[in-house]
Amino acid sequence: MATDIADTGTEESPPIYVQPDVDVDELKRLLDGKYAAIRDLVRANLAAYSSILEEAETMTRPEFRERVREVVVELAATGQTGMGFPEEYGGGGDIGASVAAFETLAFGDLSVLVKVGVQFGLFGGAILQLGTKAHHDAYLADMITAKTMGCFAMTETGHGSNVQALGTVATYDLATHEYVIETHGEDARKDYIGNAADHAELAVVFAQLVVGGTSEGVHAFVVRIRENGEVVPGVHIEDDGQKMGLNGVDNGRIRFDGVRVPRTALLNQFADVTPSGVYESEIENANKRFFTMLGTLVQGRVCVGGGGINAAKVALAIAIKYGLRRRQFEASSDDEEQLLLDYGMHQRRLFPLLARTYALHFAQEVVASQLHEVFSEAEPTPNTEKNRKQLESRAAGTKALGTWHATRTIQECREACGGAGYLSVNRFAALKADTDVFTTFEGDNTVLMQLVAKGLLTDYASDFEDLDQLGTVRFVAGLAVDTVLEKTNVHKLLERIKDVLPGGDDGWDQEAGLRDPEYQLAMYRYREDHMLGGVARRLKRGIDDDMNPGEVFSRVQDHVIGAARAHVERLVLEAFIEKTRAFPDGDVKVALNLLVDLHALSGIENDRAWFMEHGRLTSTRSKAITREVGDLCRKIRPICGDLVDGFGVPDEMLRAPDLVGRR
Amino acid sequence: MATDIADTGTEESPPIYVQPDVDVDELKRLLDGKYAAIRDLVRANLAAYSSILEEAETMTRPEFRERVREVVVELAATGQTGMGFPEEYGGGGDIGASVAAFETLAFGDLSVLVKVGVQFGLFGGAILQLGTKAHHDAYLADMITAKTMGCFAMTETGHGSNVQALGTVATYDLATHEYVIETHGEDARKDYIGNAADHAELAVVFAQLVVGGTSEGVHAFVVRIRENGEVVPGVHIEDDGQKMGLNGVDNGRIRFDGVRVPRTALLNQFADVTPSGVYESEIENANKRFFTMLGTLVQGRVCVGGGGINAAKVALAIAIKYGLRRRQFEASSDDEEQLLLDYGMHQRRLFPLLARTYALHFAQEVVASQLHEVFSEAEPTPNTEKNRKQLESRAAGTKALGTWHATRTIQECREACGGAGYLSVNRFAALKADTDVFTTFEGDNTVLMQLVAKGLLTDYASDFEDLDQLGTVRFVAGLAVDTVLEKTNVHKLLERIKDVLPGGDDGWDQEAGLRDPEYQLAMYRYREDHMLGGVARRLKRGIDDDMNPGEVFSRVQDHVIGAARAHVERLVLEAFIEKTRAFPDGDVKVALNLLVDLHALSGIENDRAWFMEHGRLTSTRSKAITREVGDLCRKIRPICGDLVDGFGVPDEMLRAPDLVGRR
Repeated sequence: MATDIADTGTEESPPIYVQPDVDVDELKRLLDGKYAAIRDLVRANLAAYSSILEEAETMTRPEFRERVREVVVELAATGQTGMGFPEEYGGGGDIGASVAAFETLAFGDLSVLVKVGVQFGLFGGAILQLGTKAHHDAYLADMITAKTMGCFAMTETGHGSNVQALGTVATYDLATHEYVIETHGEDARKDYIGNAADHAELAVVFAQLVVGGTSEGVHAFVVRIRENGEVVPGVHIEDDGQKMGLNGVDNGRIRFDGVRVPRTALLNQFADVTPSGVYESEIENANKRFFTMLGTLVQGRVCVGGGGINAAKVALAIAIKYGLRRRQFEASSDDEEQLLLDYGMHQRRLFPLLARTYALHFAQEVVASQLHEVFSEAEPTPNTEKNRKQLESRAAGTKALGTWHATRTIQECREACGGAGYLSVNRFAALKADTDVFTTFEGDNTVLMQLVAKGLLTDYASDFEDLDQLGTVRFVAGLAVDTVLEKTNVHKLLERIKDVLPGGDDGWDQEAGLRDPEYQLAMYRYREDHMLGGVARRLKRGIDDDMNPGEVFSRVQDHVIGAARAHVERLVLEAFIEKTRAFPDGDVKVALNLLVDLHALSGIENDRAWFMEHGRLTSTRSKAITREVGDLCRKIRPICGDLVDGFGVPDEMLRAPDLVGRR
Repeated sequence: MATDIADTGTEESPPIYVQPDVDVDELKRLLDGKYAAIRDLVRANLAAYSSILEEAETMTRPEFRERVREVVVELAATGQTGMGFPEEYGGGGDIGASVAAFETLAFGDLSVLVKVGVQFGLFGGAILQLGTKAHHDAYLADMITAKTMGCFAMTETGHGSNVQALGTVATYDLATHEYVIETHGEDARKDYIGNAADHAELAVVFAQLVVGGTSEGVHAFVVRIRENGEVVPGVHIEDDGQKMGLNGVDNGRIRFDGVRVPRTALLNQFADVTPSGVYESEIENANKRFFTMLGTLVQGRVCVGGGGINAAKVALAIAIKYGLRRRQFEASSDDEEQLLLDYGMHQRRLFPLLARTYALHFAQEVVASQLHEVFSEAEPTPNTEKNRKQLESRAAGTKALGTWHATRTIQECREACGGAGYLSVNRFAALKADTDVFTTFEGDNTVLMQLVAKGLLTDYASDFEDLDQLGTVRFVAGLAVDTVLEKTNVHKLLERIKDVLPGGDDGWDQEAGLRDPEYQLAMYRYREDHMLGGVARRLKRGIDDDMNPGEVFSRVQDHVIGAARAHVERLVLEAFIEKTRAFPDGDVKVALNLLVDLHALSGIENDRAWFMEHGRLTSTRSKAITREVGDLCRKIRPICGDLVDGFGVPDEMLRAPDLVGRR
C-alpha cells in the first residue's frame, strides 16, 4: 500500500496520456451486451415498482411478504421471469435472457429477487430439468404465471452442504404404488426453505429413495404441501421467523409425517421406479447419477453470482457519487474543503473494487453464455459431459467470487459514506442485510471452491466425479504431480504465453511491462499452475507418510481453496482482457484498459507476498506495482462518475437522496 | 496461507509440548481484572433483562425505543451506569469501573449500550468535563438517575469529522445577556443525534461562538429542547427514521431558529463570556482550546472500542461452540462426518480472530487504566498535558482497531455458521447491524488513524496540536527525518531490543526464534519505525518538489494510515506480551502464550509482503511463519471452547439455541 510521490509515471506507461472522454451510453451498451432489451424491460419494471424499497421498511413482515408475492406475480405477467422456459408453456425459450433478467433485477429489492429465484429458478428449474413431459405439462404453465407457487425443499437442519447425506426418506410402497415421505428426527427437517412458510402449494422434495428395502440415494419428488392455502395433512410447517434480511421471503421448516404421493411424483428424468418396484436408471453409478441430477440445477448458481455483482454496482454507484459531492477538511486550500474522492485513500478504497466489478461482470457474461450454449444444445455431443462439468466448476467459482465481492464492496461503500450510510433511506442497510446470505446459499462459497479444486485435480473426468472428499484425496495422492498438471488448461496456456514475453522463460517476470496484459496473464497463470502442483504434492506426501486422509485434507485445505481461487481469478482476468481486446479503439477502450490494469495489478498487489515467496516478484518490482496502482487510481478519478453511470442502475434504485443529491 | 504438512513441529518449539488444561474460572478472573465485581453486576443485569434481545425483533420501532429507555432507567438504578461520576451527585467515583461496566454491557442488546453511551458518556460526560460547578449542581444528579435525558448535538449533516467547521452559530446578545442559537442552512442542522428524536429534554449543543462580531470557534452550550416531553419553540426536530441497526435509539435532526439561552448555558470550563461581552479563556490559542475541550471527551472513544471488542467475543463464542458441535462431510472416516473445527480452513478462519480478541482485550485494559489515571489526577503535573495527548492518540487507535475487528469478526463468524447464522434468533443479524456504525461514530476510523499519525509525527508536542492537515504537512516537511524518528518511543525501544536478540543488529530477523516475543516485538517495532520515517521522507520530498500540500497529503495518505496502524498494532502486541509475562506459570499461561504467538505471527503473516519488500523476511522464513501459524491453530483446537468460555458471556446473551445447543 505505498504510493511513491516522487514517481510521476512509469516506464511502461505510454509517453503521453490523454484522458478519455467516456460516452456513458456506449459503455452501457457494452455492459448490457446482447440482452440489452430484456435488461431495459427489467429496469422499467424496477422503476415502476420502486415503492417496494420503502415498503420493505414500513410494512410488517406479513404485509411485506404479501407485497413481494404480489410484485412477483405482476412481474411474471411482463414475461421477464419466464424467459428461460419453453415457449409452448408460455416461457421465452431463451436461457441467456433469463439470466440477464435475473441479474438486472438485483438492482432492486432483493426479497423480490430471491422470491423470483425460488419460484422460477429453483422450483421451476427442478421441474424442467429433473422432470419429464408429464411433469412439464402438469406444472410449467401455472408455475410461469406464478399462479402456482412452489418451493425447493433440499436443505435440512442437519445438512446443507453435504446433500448426499440428507435424512428425509421416500419409501416406495408396492401395495399402493406410492412413495411415503418421512422426516426422521430434527436434523432431517427441511429448513430455510424459501416460499415454504406462507405461499408454496407444491414442493420439490429431495429425499433418500428406498425401493424394496434398498436405498438408491437422493432423488426429487413433487409433493403438494398446501391445498387452497391450507397445509395438507401429514405436512408440518414452521416459520423460520425474522432473518437478517430478505424478510419479504417466507422461509420455513417442513416436516413430513408419512405423506403419500403417487409413483409419478418422482421427477424421473434420470431414474424411475416401475409400478412393480424395480429401480431403473441409465446412469449406473449412484454417485454419478446424483451429481448429474444436481448438475442440471447449475443455473441457480449462475444467477446468484450475477445478482451479487449487480448489487455491488448499486453500492459503488452511491458511494462514488457521494465521494464526488461530499467535502471534508481543508487539504488543498485554506478556503475550501476537499472532495472525498480527491483523497488518495478514498480512491484506493473504491477504485480497485470498481475495476473488479467490471472484471466480474464480463466473467459472468462468459459463464452465462456457456450456460446458454450447454443448455440450448439440441443433441448431446461427445463434449457435452465435459462441457457441463467445466460449466459447473466455472459457475461455482464465479458465484463464490461474485458474492464475496458483493459483501466486501457493500461494506466498504457503507463505510465510505459515513454515518449517512447507516440510515435505511440510503440503501446500504438493505443491501448489506439482504446480500449477506449470498455467500452461503446456492452452495457455501468455501465448499464451492473445493468443488472447483476437485475438478482441476481430476481434470473434470466423469470417471472421477463420483469421488467424495476422502476418495479425491486418495485418488490425487496416487497420481504423479506432473500428470495432474499437464492435463490442465492453464499449464498449456502458461507455456505458450512465456514465448511472447521479453526475457524468455526465466526473465519475463522481470522484463515485461506491468501494463502488458500478457505479463498480467502470465502471473495469474503461473500462480494457478504452481498452487495446483503444490496441492497435489502435499496430498501425495501426506498419504505417503501414512497420515489419515482426513488429517491430510484438513492440513492442505487452505492450499486447496487457494488453488481454486487462483484458477477462478485467472478465468476472470482472461474474460476481462478478451472482452477489452475485442472492443474497437476509442475512449471507452482507453477507459477499459485502465480498469483491466487496475484490476490485474491490484490483484497481484494483494497477493504480492506469494509472488515474492515463489521468486516471481522482486521487492523493487513489487513496489513498482504499488506505485502503478496509485497512478491508475489517479487516472480513473476524472472518469469514475461515468464508469458507475455505465452500469445503468435506475435512479429510483439508488434512492439515497442525501448521498447522491436528489432531494 | 500455507501449511506444510510434512512439517511436524518447528525448531523453535519446545521439544515436548504438553497440551494445557485450562481452568476457565482462572481465565475469566484474568480477563475481568480488577473490575470483576462491576462486570458481574452488569452480567447479572444483562441476564435479568435478556428478553430485550427478542423484543428488538418483535416490537415496532416506537415500542422498542420506549422499552430501551425503560431498561436504561432501570439499569441506572442499579448503579452500573453512573460509576464514572462524582459520589456527591450519586455516582460511583470510579472512571475505570465505568469503562468496565460499559464494555460488559456490549454482550447484550446494543441499542441499550448506545443509549447508555449517549446519556451518561456523551451528554453526562460533556456536562462533567466542559461544565463547572453550577452545571454539575444543576444537572448531574438527575442525569445519573436518567430522570433527565439528554443528547450530544455535535455532528451536523455537512460536518462530522471536521468538527471545527460546524455551521451552527451561537451569538452573544449583549442586551439580554443571552446566546442566540441559529442553524444556517441544511448542512448545519444537527444530524444522527441519539436521544434527540424522542427522549432528550436537554442538549449539549456545539456551535460557533460569536461575541461582539468576532468568531471564537466551537463551544458547547446546554440548551433545553423539550419541556415535559414537548419540543420547545424555536427548536425543530426531525426523526432520522429507520437505520441499519440500533433502532432502539431515537436518532434525530435538530434545527435551531433563534433559540435563546442564558449566558450561563455556556459550558465554561475552558472559556467564558463576561456579562459585558468580553470573551475570556486561559488557553490563548483558539485551535489549542478547541482540542483541549474535545480531548476531555476521550472516554467515549475508549468505551466504544471496548464495546466493539466485547461484541466480537459474543460472535466468537457462538461460532466456536457451533464449530465444536456441527459435523459436515465424511473426511476422516467413512462412517462419521467431521466436526467443522477439525477442518484446517475453519481453524484458520476463527483462531487468529480469537487470538486477536485476546490481544485487543488487554490493549483495551491498558488504555482504560490510563484513562482512569489521567482523569483521576487531583492536580495536574508537568506531564499531564503530554499524557493526555498520548491517551487521546491511544484511545483513537484502539477504538479504530477494536471496531474494525468487530465488523470483520462478526462477519466471519456469521459465515462460519452458514444459513443458520442468517436467522435473527441466532444473534448475528443484530450484532452485524448494530455494530456496523461503530467504525464511523465517535470518530471515523480513517480520520482517527490520521490523528494517531499526527501525534507521532509531531511528538505529541502541545505546540503543534493546533496544526490542521495542511499545517501538519508543512511542519513535517520542514523537519529532518531523523528528528522525527529520534523523538519517537519506538525508535528507542527498537534499538534496545536488537541487543538481546541473536544475530545482532543485522541478523536478528534471521536467527531469533519465531516464538520469541523479543523477535515478534522487534518486527512490529521495525515496521513502525520504518513506516514513520517513510511518511516523513515522502512529505518532505513532495513539498521540496513544490507540489500542492493537499496533493502531497493525498498521495501519502495510505502511508500515513499505514504508519498509524503499525504504531497501534505495536502497542497492542506489547500490551498482550506484558500481561502474559506477568502472569504466573501454569496451564493458563501456556494457553496465553499460544495466543500471543498466534496473534503476533498471524499479524506478521498478513503483512509479510511488506517485511519481504523491506528486507526483514526471507521467503523461507516467511513460509516458516505460515507453517507455525497452522501449527498454533492445531494446538489451540483442543482448548478453543475454554478460551471462549473465559470471556464470561452470559448464556442468555448467546441465545442461538440451534447453534450452541440449548434447545
